[in-house]
Amino acid sequence: MSESREKVSSKDTREIIMEATFRALSKHGYKDLRMRDIGEEMELTRQVIHYHFDGKYDLLSSFLKHIIDQYEGSVEVNEDADVRTELNARIDQCLFGPEFEEFGHWDRMKVYHELYTYAQNDGEHREIFNDHYDRIRNSIVEVIEEGIEEGTFEDVDAHRMGQLITDVIHAARGRRISLGHEDAPEEARNAIDEFILDSLHDPN
Amino acid sequence: MSESREKVSSKDTREIIMEATFRALSKHGYKDLRMRDIGEEMELTRQVIHYHFDGKYDLLSSFLKHIIDQYEGSVEVNEDADVRTELNARIDQCLFGPEFEEFGHWDRMKVYHELYTYAQNDGEHREIFNDHYDRIRNSIVEVIEEGIEEGTFEDVDAHRMGQLITDVIHAARGRRISLGHEDAPEEARNAIDEFILDSLHDPN
Repeated sequence: MSESREKVSSKDTREIIMEATFRALSKHGYKDLRMRDIGEEMELTRQVIHYHFDGKYDLLSSFLKHIIDQYEGSVEVNEDADVRTELNARIDQCLFGPEFEEFGHWDRMKVYHELYTYAQNDGEHREIFNDHYDRIRNSIVEVIEEGIEEGTFEDVDAHRMGQLITDVIHAARGRRISLGHEDAPEEARNAIDEFILDSLHDPN
Repeated sequence: MSESREKVSSKDTREIIMEATFRALSKHGYKDLRMRDIGEEMELTRQVIHYHFDGKYDLLSSFLKHIIDQYEGSVEVNEDADVRTELNARIDQCLFGPEFEEFGHWDRMKVYHELYTYAQNDGEHREIFNDHYDRIRNSIVEVIEEGIEEGTFEDVDAHRMGQLITDVIHAARGRRISLGHEDAPEEARNAIDEFILDSLHDPN
């Protein structure tokens, strides 16, 4: 087997393990999860998990990075779009989620929010979430800054506004998941338009 | 023993059990918590827990109601304060927390946010959190409405603004707890002032 074929095969195996982890986490939750639960969700022998990952914690950290990578990689913004269209697209994709072939946005977000809460006691996961938070916030800050530079937006504190929007998105997703408020993302979108993004317009 | 003395004593016992539950939850987290962990945090015999509560779940639901009651009961607003002062006081108390004699605001919030995340799978806790959410949001909505009626505030959608502020407060607390952003409540307070409450002022 050539080296490149081996890599492809190894990548596929990791993908299969990630999908099995997703199914197992959805069924059992994070704290109750055992390696055998993951093994039961795939056709490969459980030994391949131990070959690819150094225990349950390593597997779950890799899984967290995996869903964050997929999430960030799926945010599609047209290069030619004007700043207002790009800003709206970024907010909508974080709030309502991109389309995934397998495991929908809200299935992912349930796992994501559960791991986020646990990050208070977990330095490695906290670092993964912090890096992700920075990238999401910065992607919003940058498009606000771009709009200010070209004169489309008012001269606001772009960093503060990006942080506020990121917080609102996170809370609305959490409210939908924990409190069952199905309309929370839609409500948050309307509130962002009415009370936050209005500061970008010339008030006169 | 007279009936009233018995009631006082029973109330004290429940209080002792609640405090032991707090200590045990802080040490072990929600999912790993066993009744014996709570028993080890108090001087009374573990049997009193079973006398007062119908198992671990009943105890934890009572505990959740207990910390929410204490939290809501501790929000102090001067009856004579003008609407702007009252609105600021309510936002600050939710963000930075009231003073407690035992177990500080952030110790409480850690437990609160952990139980909040679990409420996605727990109908009874979800209802307790929903009632609490409604009361906190409404307390902010009402003071905005009062300010609009008396002509101090611009005529905004008070319900939407109250919900937005409640979401921002929740996200900032969660960010401090999960990501370790010590300044998150302060940053949220500044962002609320600059981008949300500015809509209450006459822009001209």
